[in-house]
This record gives sequence, C-alpha cells and structure tokens, in this order.
Amino acid sequence: MRIVVLAGGIGGARFLRGLKAAEPQADITVVGNTGDDIHLFGLKVCPDLDTVMYTLGEGINDEQGWGRRDETWSIREEMAAYGVEPTWFGLGDRDYATHIVRTQMMGAGYPLSAVTEALCARWKPGVRLIPMSDDRVETHVVVDTAELADAVAGDRPGTRKAIHFQEYWVKLRAAPTAYAIVPVGIEEAKPAPGVLAAIAEADVILFPPSNPVVSIGTILGVPGIRDALVEAEAPVVGLSPIVGGAPVRGMADKVLDAVGVETSAVAVAKHYGPGLLDGWLVDSTDADSVAAVEEAGIPCRAIPLMMTDVEATAAMARAALDMAAEVRAEGGV
Amino acid sequence: MRIVVLAGGIGGARFLRGLKAAEPQADITVVGNTGDDIHLFGLKVCPDLDTVMYTLGEGINDEQGWGRRDETWSIREEMAAYGVEPTWFGLGDRDYATHIVRTQMMGAGYPLSAVTEALCARWKPGVRLIPMSDDRVETHVVVDTAELADAVAGDRPGTRKAIHFQEYWVKLRAAPTAYAIVPVGIEEAKPAPGVLAAIAEADVILFPPSNPVVSIGTILGVPGIRDALVEAEAPVVGLSPIVGGAPVRGMADKVLDAVGVETSAVAVAKHYGPGLLDGWLVDSTDADSVAAVEEAGIPCRAIPLMMTDVEATAAMARAALDMAAEVRAEGGV
Repeated sequence: MRIVVLAGGIGGARFLRGLKAAEPQADITVVGNTGDDIHLFGLKVCPDLDTVMYTLGEGINDEQGWGRRDETWSIREEMAAYGVEPTWFGLGDRDYATHIVRTQMMGAGYPLSAVTEALCARWKPGVRLIPMSDDRVETHVVVDTAELADAVAGDRPGTRKAIHFQEYWVKLRAAPTAYAIVPVGIEEAKPAPGVLAAIAEADVILFPPSNPVVSIGTILGVPGIRDALVEAEAPVVGLSPIVGGAPVRGMADKVLDAVGVETSAVAVAKHYGPGLLDGWLVDSTDADSVAAVEEAGIPCRAIPLMMTDVEATAAMARAALDMAAEVRAEGGV
Repeated sequence: MRIVVLAGGIGGARFLRGLKAAEPQADITVVGNTGDDIHLFGLKVCPDLDTVMYTLGEGINDEQGWGRRDETWSIREEMAAYGVEPTWFGLGDRDYATHIVRTQMMGAGYPLSAVTEALCARWKPGVRLIPMSDDRVETHVVVDTAELADAVAGDRPGTRKAIHFQEYWVKLRAAPTAYAIVPVGIEEAKPAPGVLAAIAEADVILFPPSNPVVSIGTILGVPGIRDALVEAEAPVVGLSPIVGGAPVRGMADKVLDAVGVETSAVAVAKHYGPGLLDGWLVDSTDADSVAAVEEAGIPCRAIPLMMTDVEATAAMARAALDMAAEVRAEGGV
C-alpha cells in the first residue's frame, strides 16, 4: 500500500510513528512542511523536517517532542556569551550538527530534497521524506506592533508588521493577535521532485492532526499540490487537530483566527473543503459534529483522537485507512 | 610602550601571556597568522587567531594548548554518525560556536579583521589582535603521494601533490617529507587594516618562538609586511623556537627542511636575516651559538627559553624587551 502523508512537526511525526506501527509494510511518502524553516546564525534550520526525521529515526527528545535526546547545549551558552541573537530559539549541539551539514550541502549546490535524503540515509526513518518544495518558503505572521513587548523605536503603535513564524510561535508564544499568515515565497515555489508523482500514485492520502493553517495549509499552498490532491485517485482522509473546540497541542486556534476559521473540528473540515477531503475523523467527544461535517459533503466518523502512545496512535491510523478503504469501495473518490 | 608581536598559535599565545605579565601597561598589537585557516563543514576556522584569543581570554584548554576548556564534543559525534569528513580535525562544540559566528559575519560581508575584533569584544584578550590579512591565504604543503597512506586511486607513486597545511600537520602529523610550503593566495593578499600602521608606530617588534616557516614566515610573506618591518624604527627582536637542534614543541624541523633551513637556532636567525632581525635570543643550552649569530650581523644573547610557566615566559619577554632597548640605545636600528 502506497500512503502519502502531509506532515507538519510534532503532531505529524507522532502520527507517522503510529502509522508505521499500524502498517509496517506500507510504502510511506511524507511531504514535509518547510514553511517554518528559518535561517539562524547563517544556518538553514528545518524544524518540521527534522522533527519527522528525528522522531522516526529514534533520535527525538520524546518529552519535549522536538530536538535531540541526550542533547548538550554548549553552543547556546557560547552564543549568549558572544551576545549573538536570537537566544529564544532552542538549538542544541547535536541539532546544530544537522544544520551545519545541511547548510554545507546546500552551499555546495544540492537542493533541500537531496540534502534531506542524505540526512535520512543516517536516520533511516522508514519513510520517504520529501520537503514540500526545494524553493525557499518562510511563513510570516502579520501582527500589530502595539502588542509587541519589544516594539522597536520607530514602530508606531497600531502599525501592522510581518514577523517570522518562529518569532511569533516560539518567541512570542502566539500571544499577539495574528492578522494574517503570509507564506513568503510560496507563489514562486514548485513542488519538490517526487511530490506530485507520489500523490498521483498513492493508494491513500492522509492529513495527520497537524496544524491546518501553518503546516498542512502551507503545503497545500504550494502551486500544484492542492490540484494534484484533488485529482488524485486515492481518497484523502484527514484527522482533526481540534478536539472539543481546542487544539490538542500547540496554539492552532491563534492562526485559525487569522484565516477566519473557527476552532472546531467542523470548521477545519469545511476549511479544507469537500473538494479536497474524502473523509474526516473527529474525536469521540466531538461525535455530535459528525452530522455537520457530513452535511458539508464530507464522510465523517468519530473515534478517539488522542495520541497518548504509539498504540493509540496506530489505532487512529488504522481508522483512517479503514475509512479510506470504505470511501473507495463506495466509489466516493 | 607600543609592542607589535607576530604570532602563530600555541607558542605565540603562550609567549603573549608572558609578555602581558611582564608589561601589563604595554599597548600590544598582535599580527596573527591566518595561513593555517581552513574551511571545514562550510565554516571558516582560524586556529591561530583563536588560540591567541582563547589563551589571552582565559578560555583555552591549557593542557592541550588549543581549543576550549570545559569543551563538549556532541557535534563531532554527530558528524561521525552522518559520515561527514574530515574526522581528524578536532572541533569541540564551544569552538564551533566561534566558527559559526565568524562565518555568519563574513557571509554578511564583514572582513576577517572586523570579525576578529567583534569576537575579541567578548574575550577581552588585553591586546589588539589583527589577522595578517583580510584576504584568504591557506598554506599548502607539497608531498609525495608515495608517502601518503591513503593515496587515492589514480595517484601515481612519485607524484607530487599539494595538501592543506592542516591535513599535513594534524592528520598526517607531519610524517611525510615536505617538499615545499605554498601559502596559496599570498601574492594577492594585502596586510589587514592597521597592520602596517602598528608596525610603523611600534617601539618594539617581537617574534615569539613561533614556527619560523608556517607561522611567522607566512606573515612575512604578505606583500608589504616584511618591508614595513625592515623600515620600522623599532628594533625587531626574535626568540628562537629551536633549542638544542630541535623544536621546543611541534614539528618545525619538518617544514624547515622544506625551505632548506637547518633545524638550529643559528640557521633560523640567518633565515630571517640581519636585514630584518636586530636581536636574537637563543636558549642557554645553545650559548655556543651566540658567536655564530653575531658573526652573521645579528646581536645575540643566550637565556633560558623554555616557556614552562607564565613567570618563566615573562622573564623571556623581559629579556627580549631589554635587548630591544639595548639595541636601540646602541643605535643598532
């Protein structure tokens, strides 16, 4: 079975761990979000790709969900001693090694997809991990300077300003209102080699419970990817990242507000749209939402959606695959 | 008192520590060798500049003489896990931070001299540290492929080949015969801003017991620096790195052979030449060399030249300054 998964960071990576447990023989291609990529200290950092790679390669710090286990923090101490900014983004020494190797390879002319493949030669994630694009896309968030604690001199209160997604998410913990989400560079981005072919040849396409705006939404924004998904023969089944009106983890509500979407399992399904989704899974506690999703033309089931451990996550993956098989059998695609 | 010191790595740095102890009020400018610079993992590494900076800034690993104290080695482990070469050059995590900051600043357009000044703002070495040049100079060593254990397929035995100085020095531990020393790029290199002015305005110029070929020799090879030293009003006094016919530390004999200079305190003095040197200090055990050096037109004294601790080194520095004062008083310059 050929499965394509669109993935963000922690949520996507944990879902993939469950999917591999559920379907160890499956041929899984992961299209990874690169909209949260950032250049720090002259190095190219790809948080979502790395979270997937480290998680599936058994190198992740399981408690925090990102970064490396057995990490050391010497470089962070040194950067502080040198007074070099930013200090708010947590890069450990082992993690730095990945970014140094990546930056060196990209400097030598290799595209991100080739670099990711080379890094995965070590990590052996058991999936094919492809960035959504080899072109640089960096998501920015439009905020109001009046809400920025460190508003710089010259910023007039009431002025809108675009800041890097990581600054919004990590430094400011999504506290200021997000007025718009701007994936800078996306209009000119092309899907990375292999992305469209994997979608076209897939038996099943899954949206894990990743952030629908800044993770899956960004991937869908790369010209050509949404169309390929709509035209794919494979059913597209998604799992709601919203349970009981709140994000399971993270601060997805903040960015859903920015795109005018309510923080609910129903609203996210409608946001993706019936043209894209062939099935939607909501949490058991949202069972009363099933009818509303189906009214919108999207088959829907309610199952437990908390990724508490690999077994629970594998059960979610199985439910998604079962739903895809049903949809297909019913000729829904 | 304005003192200019031409310095290589460990020997130069230790001498400078003694000089600062001997003359805490002196205005010291260090012209640092950059011929042993190397690009590793996409990062600009300046071993000699950093050894001076870390040593005088109390950040050096005193036992090994290079690298940082309280160092961690996570990145080295990661590079080995990624299979990324080279593995023979020892870069610790704290050291990496320096190279990352340097590389980022140079990528932003700052010349090496400005970057070095910025790094020294943290380390406060108590001297003004200037690279010999902002232009890239990387010393190479011509060897015979027959002597290389890892001679690559296609290398015919008996073929001469230029390898990077660090590969010769660190990886091969100077075991193969050096047929020539080639400071690549030196013809086009210009002295860094401030170097010529410091030499012109100095009261004393010192050559520490650094390597006369690949450290001081390289600095002298930057067009304009030797002439400035010859024309300087200040006396130039050197300390022999050769004691009893052997280098005090390191493998200077290997590179002296390459330039046709015998490994002796006399031969090194003659190699610098009476046009350049106004005084030369040899070790007490080489007291019988004094006459030969003076016959070559260079005033010479024999004193203990082992830098066993800061006090012994300070005594050497005092002797060099005393000799400079005598030479000056005698109208030798």
